[in-house]
Amino acid sequence: MQVMEIMMTDDVVNALKYDANGLIPAIAQQYDTNEVLMMAWMNRQSVAETLRSGRVCYWSRSRSKLWRKGETSGQIQQLKEFRWDCDADTVLLLVDQKGVACHTGRRNCFFNALRDGGISTIADPEVDPKDLYGE
Amino acid sequence: MQVMEIMMTDDVVNALKYDANGLIPAIAQQYDTNEVLMMAWMNRQSVAETLRSGRVCYWSRSRSKLWRKGETSGQIQQLKEFRWDCDADTVLLLVDQKGVACHTGRRNCFFNALRDGGISTIADPEVDPKDLYGE
Repeated sequence: MQVMEIMMTDDVVNALKYDANGLIPAIAQQYDTNEVLMMAWMNRQSVAETLRSGRVCYWSRSRSKLWRKGETSGQIQQLKEFRWDCDADTVLLLVDQKGVACHTGRRNCFFNALRDGGISTIADPEVDPKDLYGE
Repeated sequence: MQVMEIMMTDDVVNALKYDANGLIPAIAQQYDTNEVLMMAWMNRQSVAETLRSGRVCYWSRSRSKLWRKGETSGQIQQLKEFRWDCDADTVLLLVDQKGVACHTGRRNCFFNALRDGGISTIADPEVDPKDLYGE
């Protein structure tokens, strides 16, 4: 890690605005298809780790710990570009998703839709969650 | 408004999980290009209004009131499909964005990026904000 890279990581970490819990929402988008994969949360530490490692790391609110996406399932997200919005309070991660993003085994998490006048499940699992988490 | 439509709107409003402030994050994505336009917040009332009117309505946290996107600027979002994620705590709005989504006059809000070792502005305004808000 070069000194310049460390400084740049700190600049980005400091440019972002975190909520009262020290968190910022992060949208993960597949870099080449623009598919929105999921939304999760980051804190300063997970932003820094993501930028330094090139692999997406969130903050798990339910487990109160760093969540290195794919650490259990193998379904990692390689960072392609780190972006943030006009108010610096939302992150957009362009990623290359290995396998599936959703813990249900679906490619993305947004599979519930209001369609044709009813609530529909618009995507099927591509992988059995048992194979991802060994349940 | 048919009785079935009202019931379905209530079902969706009730299917979603809101945070301690009664809010849920909503990602707006251009329906035909998959461009991520912006992220904002909705409450139960704004979800219901969006579903009933077909025009996206957020909740403005800074102004503590319903924010009918485009009410001042004319840059409205026509709802194409309403989706939500596996945990029912994030909404994905497929929309047809009229003009630009960002208050800076840019097409989308995510114009800050870490690129080529530095923080870059990767999009220019397409419209002068003065022409949007009459400032």
